[in-house]
Order: sequence, then C-alpha cells, then structure tokens
Amino acid sequence: MHLELTMKKYTIGIDLGGTNTKIALVGDSCDIIKREQFSTKLYKTKEDLVFAISGVIKKMISGYSLKESQISGIGIGAPGLVDSDRGIVHCLTNIPGWENVNLKNLLQRKIHFETYIDNDVNLMALAESKFGAAKGAKEVFCVTLGTGVGGGIVIDGKIYRGYTQSAGEIGHVSINSNGPKCNCGNKGCIESYIGNNAIVENVVARIKSGTPSILKELTGGQLDKITPHMITQAAKKGDKLSIQIWAIVAEYLSVGLVMVVNVFNPQIIVIGGGIAEAGKFLFDPLRKKVRENAIAVSSKAVHIVKAKLGNDAGIIGAAELVRMQKTRKVL
Amino acid sequence: MHLELTMKKYTIGIDLGGTNTKIALVGDSCDIIKREQFSTKLYKTKEDLVFAISGVIKKMISGYSLKESQISGIGIGAPGLVDSDRGIVHCLTNIPGWENVNLKNLLQRKIHFETYIDNDVNLMALAESKFGAAKGAKEVFCVTLGTGVGGGIVIDGKIYRGYTQSAGEIGHVSINSNGPKCNCGNKGCIESYIGNNAIVENVVARIKSGTPSILKELTGGQLDKITPHMITQAAKKGDKLSIQIWAIVAEYLSVGLVMVVNVFNPQIIVIGGGIAEAGKFLFDPLRKKVRENAIAVSSKAVHIVKAKLGNDAGIIGAAELVRMQKTRKVL
Repeated sequence: MHLELTMKKYTIGIDLGGTNTKIALVGDSCDIIKREQFSTKLYKTKEDLVFAISGVIKKMISGYSLKESQISGIGIGAPGLVDSDRGIVHCLTNIPGWENVNLKNLLQRKIHFETYIDNDVNLMALAESKFGAAKGAKEVFCVTLGTGVGGGIVIDGKIYRGYTQSAGEIGHVSINSNGPKCNCGNKGCIESYIGNNAIVENVVARIKSGTPSILKELTGGQLDKITPHMITQAAKKGDKLSIQIWAIVAEYLSVGLVMVVNVFNPQIIVIGGGIAEAGKFLFDPLRKKVRENAIAVSSKAVHIVKAKLGNDAGIIGAAELVRMQKTRKVL
Repeated sequence: MHLELTMKKYTIGIDLGGTNTKIALVGDSCDIIKREQFSTKLYKTKEDLVFAISGVIKKMISGYSLKESQISGIGIGAPGLVDSDRGIVHCLTNIPGWENVNLKNLLQRKIHFETYIDNDVNLMALAESKFGAAKGAKEVFCVTLGTGVGGGIVIDGKIYRGYTQSAGEIGHVSINSNGPKCNCGNKGCIESYIGNNAIVENVVARIKSGTPSILKELTGGQLDKITPHMITQAAKKGDKLSIQIWAIVAEYLSVGLVMVVNVFNPQIIVIGGGIAEAGKFLFDPLRKKVRENAIAVSSKAVHIVKAKLGNDAGIIGAAELVRMQKTRKVL
C-alpha cells in the first residue's frame, strides 16, 4: 500500500479538435511523456470516436507498463459549449452530431478513469497561465484566433466560467447588425470578420478588384490557395495589402479586447492560434488600438502577448484540469 | 477576558460621496444602528474632512457607550480610483484635491481603528450581492447611474477588482471617438451620454427645437429645472419625449452591458442610482437591447434588475468589507 502511494502519478490530456484529436500521457509537472493524434473526421459517430480515444489511452498505459492506479484521471478540452460540472457537451463547433452529449459518462463507460471536461479555450488559458506566456499573472485572458475566435479567463489560477459557462466569448460579439451571417445565428460577429476564411476571402476580393499584391505571384495566380500563413510571409516581404489586412484584423479584434480590458481589467492578454503567427503585423496595430480605445489606467497596464505553448496548450490544460480537481479533493 | 470576547461587535461604514458623506454604526448582521450625514463640501481640505469623520465616529461610539474593542474596524467607499490593498485614493470624481492620498493612514492617525478602503460601486455591488437584489447569486455585476456611470463585480461573494483595480468600468467605454469630451479625458464615453447632466441636456435641447413635452408645463417653462426624476414622472403620464429619452438611455447603456454579458457572463445585473428610478421605461428597452445584441446563451440567462438597498448600499457594503477582512484573518 505504501509503495502504491509513492508511485508516480500521470494524467491523460485530450484535445478534441474539429480536425485532429490529440491524446497525451502527461507527467506530474505537466510534462508530456507520450503523444498520439488522429483525424477526428475518421470517426462518423461519437461512439466510434470515444472508442478510438479509449483504445489509444489503453495502448499508452500498457506501453509504459503503468498500473491503472497511477492514472489520476482524464481531462478533455472540447471546441464548443460545455457544462464542465456535469461533463456535458452542449454543442461542438465544426463537429456535427454532438448535441447535449454526456461525454464524461460516455468515456467513463469505456474506460474507468475519472473524466473532466471543459471548453478548449478555457483549458488553453489554464495551461498558458500555469506554464506558458501568462505564468505568474493573476488575471489572464486568452484568445484563440483560427477558424473561430474564442476566449478564456483564468483568475488566481482557476478557470472563470461564468453563469452559463460562456464567459470570455468575444468572437460572437456583433459589431454590425447588418454584417455577414455567422455560424452562431447572429449577424456581423467579430468571428465572421476575422476567422481564417473571412481573412482569406477579404484578401482575395481585394486582389480581384485590382489591389496589387505579391500573393498573386506566390500562388501562381491560384488565389484559392492563399492561407493566413502566406499573408504573413507576404507581409514580411513588405507586401502592402498583406500588412493592411493584418491591421484590419487587429482593428476588429481590438473591439473585443477593449471590452475585455474595460470589464475584466486583466494583467495579461495571451493570443494563440494560427493567426497569432502574424506577429508584429497583428500585435503592433492591436496594442495601439486597445491603448487608444480602452480605459487609460487598464489599457496602459495590460500586456498583450503571443501564446507560448502552441499546439500543446490544449493537452497540457486538460491534464492540469485533472490535477487541480484532484488537489481540491485532497484539500 | 471571556466577557470581552462574547460582547457584541460593530463596524463603522462610511460612504464618502461628492455631495454627502454618510457614516453609520453597523451591527453584526449588517443592520444599521445609527446613521449620520453631512455635506462633504463643508470641508475644504482632506484633513478637515477626515477630522470631521473621526469626530462623528467618536460621538457615535460614546453615544452607545461602546468600548473601543467592540469596533471591528472602519470601511470606507470612495467615488474614484482606489488602491484597496494599500488604502490609497488615487483620485476622486467630483471631490478635488484627492490625488494619491493614503486615506487609510490619514484616518488611522486620527482614530485608532483598522480601516479598509474600496471604490464605492464595488461596495454597493458587495452589499447588493450579500443582502440585496443579488443575494445568492454567484456572478454579480452592479451598475450605478447618476452623475456618473460606475460598475462593480462580485464573484462568489468577493469583490473582483482586476489588475489595476479598475474592472467593471463600463461608463468610460468610448462609443464615439468624435463624441463629447468626458471628464476622464477621453471622447464619447457612455457616461458622457447618460450621466444625469447629459440626459437633462438632451431633453432640454429637444424641447427647445420644438419637440412637444409636458415637461414644459411641469416646469412652468423653466427648462433648467428639469431633473431625471421629473422625466420619469412625465413618462408615467405618457409623455412621448420622456419615454423616448429613457429608451435612448437604455440603448447607450446596453452597449456597456452587452460587453459585460459577453465577457463576464453574470447571473444578475443590478442597476442602482437615481436613474434606475425610471423603472420600466429604462428596464424594458434595456433588457430587449441586451437580449438582441449579446451572445444568446448568456443574454437569455442573465437577470437585469433594480437595486434593493438604495442609499444604504454604500454604508452596508463598507461595513461588510470590514467584516469580510476580519473573517479572513480569523480563518
């Protein structure tokens, strides 16, 4: 019995994404020991997906000859509206068929470890605040910029979820009631202006209407090949249109961040996701706009920085969620 | 010694306002035993004001034959930017001469009770969440509407202040960079559209440019006599202009509250201050606008209600601030 207690503990961190599902065996200090990933789209039903997840976990545990008692639990980050108290996924952006699914129970029936669920951006925020760009900060706001625009809040090292667990949602703030229709049903949401697709469409439309850009040459005229990454590459080469596009993205995003600064008054705002790779082309005009439009005392103090943990933030945050719950129970 | 421990404890709650300073002797369950108030403007220097405050407190204590050991401490709410950790008032709206004053030390030198300082709206939020309209709610946002527009946040029964202790500041969100100059230095802040003066000026301008209103008769043609209270009275009598004015106020305020709902996702928003007396003329269009423009799941869930504690919220919140600090120390 004494031996058992002193044996090392591990957690399983899962980042359930619209494109890929990442699963990791994570050590005591949130170090990733082993990681696996597969295409989420390979599995047509949620039962198949959960079966695949439990298979990977079992293989990992046996691969390292671990005892079941050494696994503290499983943490899962899901890209959508989640009830973390009950382990229910209300809906997942870009993964159809997930309406009010008790993912906690579904997985626990396949594999008998205690399971904790949260929104993926909340877990990214938790990871960045514990081990990443916001380490040591008390009031942390995280944003992910990619296909969608998400936000997560951490206060004093704990995720702040809000009354309906939808706090931090700056992507679905409508800034134009006559704007483009958003996936959420509303019109003119920030996400509908600065999601990956919107950015690319904006660039393509400007090139088609005659704005000169080296993106035309870079893609050999195949404008549908343009990606946010290419826009950043073009900006680095001095392409005026690309630089301008990132300034426009910064301006839209600043509307959301000004709200965050005024209401939540964070010490640090961490920006992650593919779009954050635009670096200074995004961050310089963004910092300027927030400084101009948010309350002076709050906007002068806030740091706006790039995320540090990259693609690992989700699995590290998921593992940390388990660790925190376990620590709370011991206390 | 044993007798001393079982004796009843009291706190002093102070609401330091631009117009009046209210001081109360408050019982164990935040019941007001005795209250005094005087015009803040009677005292030209901060030393004189602090001397007057300490005089009132001493008189209260001796009036009830209390021992000094029965007073747990003094709580003060101040209308401005405050460092509650160090007891410093950075600046007070509408009370000149208060730049970076250590009010805690200043008062403690005159009267030897432990003193705690906070922003007045934070203390109103604390009072409403503990004893008022938001009793039992976990995530509470309070707004005061009067000369200025302030906001305060309470999470799990504790004041959330933010990194620079300026969280919840929805009054100084700029909604028009070419708008009227605000006291804070910025242009087009929400406060500059819906502060008391702005509301009255808006009504007067409309009447002067020919919009019919019974306010003209109610004031005997002396339009400078119009108050927000009179606008509500006129609205109750069916005055179209007055009803329209409250709808306009609701629309401006909704811009701030939509931010609050999206970022903070509160269970309840409590609205206090003189303007809240407009009742349904303000609340009906306000609830509608927030529902329309904030994220669906958050805006459907949030309750928007009138404050309950009225003018007592400040002193009750100040007394509760002391009680909470004392409880924390005991634990």
